Amino acid sequence: MADILIKNGYILTMDPDTGDLKKGEVAIENGRIIYVGLSYNGKADKIIDASGSVVMPGLVNTHNHAGMTLLRGYADDLPLAEWLEDYIWPVEAKLGPEEIYAGVRLACLEMIKSGTTTFADMYIHEQAAARAVEDCGMRAALSYGMIDFGDPERAESSLLKGRNFVKDFNGAANGRISVMYGPHAPHTCSQQFLQDVREQARKDDVKVHIHVLETEAELNQMKEKYGKCSVNMLHDIGFFDSDVLAAHCIWLSEGDMDILAETGVHVSHDPVSNMKTAAGIAPVPQLLEKGVNVSLSTDGCASNNNLDMFGVMKTAALLHKVNSMDLTVIDARKVLEMATVNGAKALGIEAGMIKEGYYGDLIVVDMKRPHLTPLYDVDSHLVYSARGSDVTTVLVDGKVLMENGQVLCMDEYEIMVEASKAAKKTDSQHLIDVLGLNDPSADQ
Amino acid sequence: MADILIKNGYILTMDPDTGDLKKGEVAIENGRIIYVGLSYNGKADKIIDASGSVVMPGLVNTHNHAGMTLLRGYADDLPLAEWLEDYIWPVEAKLGPEEIYAGVRLACLEMIKSGTTTFADMYIHEQAAARAVEDCGMRAALSYGMIDFGDPERAESSLLKGRNFVKDFNGAANGRISVMYGPHAPHTCSQQFLQDVREQARKDDVKVHIHVLETEAELNQMKEKYGKCSVNMLHDIGFFDSDVLAAHCIWLSEGDMDILAETGVHVSHDPVSNMKTAAGIAPVPQLLEKGVNVSLSTDGCASNNNLDMFGVMKTAALLHKVNSMDLTVIDARKVLEMATVNGAKALGIEAGMIKEGYYGDLIVVDMKRPHLTPLYDVDSHLVYSARGSDVTTVLVDGKVLMENGQVLCMDEYEIMVEASKAAKKTDSQHLIDVLGLNDPSADQ
Repeated sequence: MADILIKNGYILTMDPDTGDLKKGEVAIENGRIIYVGLSYNGKADKIIDASGSVVMPGLVNTHNHAGMTLLRGYADDLPLAEWLEDYIWPVEAKLGPEEIYAGVRLACLEMIKSGTTTFADMYIHEQAAARAVEDCGMRAALSYGMIDFGDPERAESSLLKGRNFVKDFNGAANGRISVMYGPHAPHTCSQQFLQDVREQARKDDVKVHIHVLETEAELNQMKEKYGKCSVNMLHDIGFFDSDVLAAHCIWLSEGDMDILAETGVHVSHDPVSNMKTAAGIAPVPQLLEKGVNVSLSTDGCASNNNLDMFGVMKTAALLHKVNSMDLTVIDARKVLEMATVNGAKALGIEAGMIKEGYYGDLIVVDMKRPHLTPLYDVDSHLVYSARGSDVTTVLVDGKVLMENGQVLCMDEYEIMVEASKAAKKTDSQHLIDVLGLNDPSADQ
Repeated sequence: MADILIKNGYILTMDPDTGDLKKGEVAIENGRIIYVGLSYNGKADKIIDASGSVVMPGLVNTHNHAGMTLLRGYADDLPLAEWLEDYIWPVEAKLGPEEIYAGVRLACLEMIKSGTTTFADMYIHEQAAARAVEDCGMRAALSYGMIDFGDPERAESSLLKGRNFVKDFNGAANGRISVMYGPHAPHTCSQQFLQDVREQARKDDVKVHIHVLETEAELNQMKEKYGKCSVNMLHDIGFFDSDVLAAHCIWLSEGDMDILAETGVHVSHDPVSNMKTAAGIAPVPQLLEKGVNVSLSTDGCASNNNLDMFGVMKTAALLHKVNSMDLTVIDARKVLEMATVNGAKALGIEAGMIKEGYYGDLIVVDMKRPHLTPLYDVDSHLVYSARGSDVTTVLVDGKVLMENGQVLCMDEYEIMVEASKAAKKTDSQHLIDVLGLNDPSADQ
């Protein structure tokens, strides 16, 4: 007997072997998909009716700093140095594990509501993020953000934090949590530190998550310091392998792209963040052409400013069309692949497709909405017309986290209150109290 | 006694004279705003509690082809010529007034739900659009799309259609409908036709809505035909004046921008459409710098593919930041101005601000949502984090069209059914029946 049977939906399997089904059924047992097809023969404990909806793999967001959700809209439209030095860093310094826990819970709530089932994260106090992920039922690949700025003592303590995190949380939450090593970036970490992390990751058989060439400033710094760019430096020290997830990858030369393709590095593309911070435009069509596995991500909320992967999908398509002045350069199906199949591949999890044996990580998107009417082409609507708020039901690991728009795995209002209180600790002066927390008559 | 009093909201007036109010009240009587301030002294027939919400001017979408909502997602990711010749034109030829009525009703429903209170439109069978606008309660500046392709007979019949439309609908729907002349574009209309339309518009004291330099192909055609670009040609025949609304304006030289600034032409910027069709990037920061009034728009649904002005606002900010590689080039407040104040100015209507004497065209945006938490800066959240689905209440002309997420001015399901049926008449083969219209057990 299956635990859950989803019926009457348009099944966007994203599995090239089976194709999509105009009207099909998906059965789930013990957290895994046990049937995808026209009609399931067995019984099920619970039936989900997906009439008029698309059933698709949950979206995979491969680069986030979930704790930064507390800094959503805290400082925008400012020059990068002023933004970091006068706003982000001073506030980050005030964030402790409890604030990060509240921030990541808020991020998870937002991601669940907009159809993301798995995310990759890199930030401070990451054990609090792990606790939040464990509590809410999502899947995540978490990394402790490590940085040494060339200081050997800081390198040692950073690596220790990273190693402890890996030890404590690898396979946690019944396997929903995987871990990665998270050296911040080639220009903020010394070469020695990067080598040490690389070696440790191989020893522990753990993947690596790193920022690469997000800004032209990084490119220039690297050239000055090493006489070569980040990609060449990392390649030369043997850092690159198919277990590396490199976020951003904007300032790439043709040769850099060849290195990424040859070494099997996965690239996480953050179009909304890259536009908002005026970092540049990653050469995604060329990377895909060369066979690099490119996935999609929101980046943290301080530079997006939300975690809606539907927005990221649309922006990814639009940006590369106009940047190449060729509207055929990327199509809706390719973008859907990046947000599902490619993301799961980058993180090494059996998800991103609706396929027998894969995790029961699925979402239901309601198509009976004015802005999704009429419906000629499901791929097109999901990428160009839908919003995160069209997601009605979310399953992770075969558990229903949201059903018909109701979040079941946490109390929405409580999460917003706790996040607002945590934000208050970092900068109460600028907060606007929409929840009525300062009103003595309000329920606290 | 006021008809409606809105209380407890954050009032984003967009009025530089009064500034915004952290907690204020707005009173409306006979369709006009009669009070904006901290506390209204009089009584009101109806109270709207906007606690935890932003009350702001309704969004103004200054370039749409609302009937094309029927073609949403019908054909995407195809080369322009194939898209137009094999898909859009053959289907458009099958659209009659009843189909356009159904399509515009759907467009209005979507716009109301996502916070747009006024739109400018140009399309075929525009009398059906006027009927839809009259029925639903929105405000609109409508134009019959006129085109002659250099054929004098077609010019005559086009102008006649345009003149009849102007006669029949100027000031219709209790003044909610204004009219414009809508010559399609400088490369699809002959110079003589453009001159005739211009003259007629001056005679009738009616504004003009036209596409200008959306594509590089237009620029090249104009140079070949006239030895100058569209802007210079139009300027030389005295077409430009402060009653002209020019959509797109992508392929502008410095001199073209000066002409637009000097003649007071209003520019409607369609960032999502321009990216999706790979048309190019309009030089918006430069236009603003030169004092041109730039407003925002979605364009038609065949090239967007939705009518969510929140998506357009975010994309506008992001696109110009990355295009100029300067994240300070445009900020959230400027984008909000473009979507409200500037739009109303382009259409010559007393809206776009919450100000005494202005129309009661307001929206309420719920900020008590996970993706809008915490709240440091209202402008930032509205542009970078909010979605059309965060709009809960919409007033036009002092009438409540939507309240707490419930559309009051039409039946949502009926509108979707009628639009789906109309789409069926144009291409039933490719339609996917999510509403169950082909299921004999479904309610028709």
